[in-house]
Amino acid sequence: MSPAFTTVISGLRGELADMVRMTGEAMGRATEALLNADLEQAQTVIAADRVIDDLNQRIDDRSVRLVSTMAPADSEVREILAILRVATSAERMGDLAVHIAKSARLRHPDSAVPEAAREIVREMGELAEQLALEAADVLETQDARAASDLKAADERLDALHRRLFGLVLSPDWKDGIEPAVDLTLISRFYERFGDHAVSIAGRAALDPR
Amino acid sequence: MSPAFTTVISGLRGELADMVRMTGEAMGRATEALLNADLEQAQTVIAADRVIDDLNQRIDDRSVRLVSTMAPADSEVREILAILRVATSAERMGDLAVHIAKSARLRHPDSAVPEAAREIVREMGELAEQLALEAADVLETQDARAASDLKAADERLDALHRRLFGLVLSPDWKDGIEPAVDLTLISRFYERFGDHAVSIAGRAALDPR
Repeated sequence: MSPAFTTVISGLRGELADMVRMTGEAMGRATEALLNADLEQAQTVIAADRVIDDLNQRIDDRSVRLVSTMAPADSEVREILAILRVATSAERMGDLAVHIAKSARLRHPDSAVPEAAREIVREMGELAEQLALEAADVLETQDARAASDLKAADERLDALHRRLFGLVLSPDWKDGIEPAVDLTLISRFYERFGDHAVSIAGRAALDPR
Repeated sequence: MSPAFTTVISGLRGELADMVRMTGEAMGRATEALLNADLEQAQTVIAADRVIDDLNQRIDDRSVRLVSTMAPADSEVREILAILRVATSAERMGDLAVHIAKSARLRHPDSAVPEAAREIVREMGELAEQLALEAADVLETQDARAASDLKAADERLDALHRRLFGLVLSPDWKDGIEPAVDLTLISRFYERFGDHAVSIAGRAALDPR
């Protein structure tokens, strides 16, 4: 890979890492909004998603120009495509944080999360945020071992996802159908968020150089 | 755009259209499997997704080679990226059909869809399949009006999605929490499938030439 190309790519990776970190912070705030029925916090997350979308657009534009001006080789094209896919995943992670924030807004001033499910949802939110921050680190370090640690954290998130289903389907569930339906979607959003973080880390660690 | 480039792109568009049609057929079969608790049909959909994944990989490889061998201009790079995004969406549509098939498998020999929800789910399945087939047509015709008709069909799908939520949350719902949770996810899968079809048609109709 040419030195000029490497410099541009590492700049793009840095911006991507910032973008992925933002989605982690958005998810952290969305979870707070959800647990505390905090409408203002929810609105903040929803409004701030524009910044993430704009970053995606900028990375997209620069990647296109990079391809059309630098006559990249096969491996370089693959690197740029990996970057574009990471940006798409990160944009989707931002959307998923918005979905969580909207769940909070929908049930405000009540909480969408009944007492019985609070602890699981809190843990899911923490893990999701952590996964995003770690995926951002992998974008900068390209550390394959960190990418594989991330997979383990995602498995914990999936286990919580299953536990939440177990809870709402158990005979002990006393909160009725509406919270069960809300939690089904909320849990799915966290799970998808984690999948995207794992996919980002996988692409970031796979350095084609 | 150079004639050689145009020829390759139109070949890729044709393959993409086939791929998107396959996801529509997969969704049609997955819906049958769901409504009839047909385990064999569900397994067929799950196994056949490999073909869709392989097509995605092939389109991916060819696009990379196209970029690195043809020194494309900005607009040509955008066209190739649009193709790659469509392929990613189509792969995801295949996954969503698999999710529906897996819901059928999970509850077999029972049906995951209680009588009260059958008609809505049947309509959602039909609309989803239709959306995929129409998106495939737009890939070949690049007809902007057809792309906008697709949006209207997707709004009908979204309306069914809301109706299903209304149903499981109504006091008339007598089927309990498990089918409500199943239907929440199933309905979400159809809705996302429709979103991807609309996004594909939008990209396909936006011809940068």
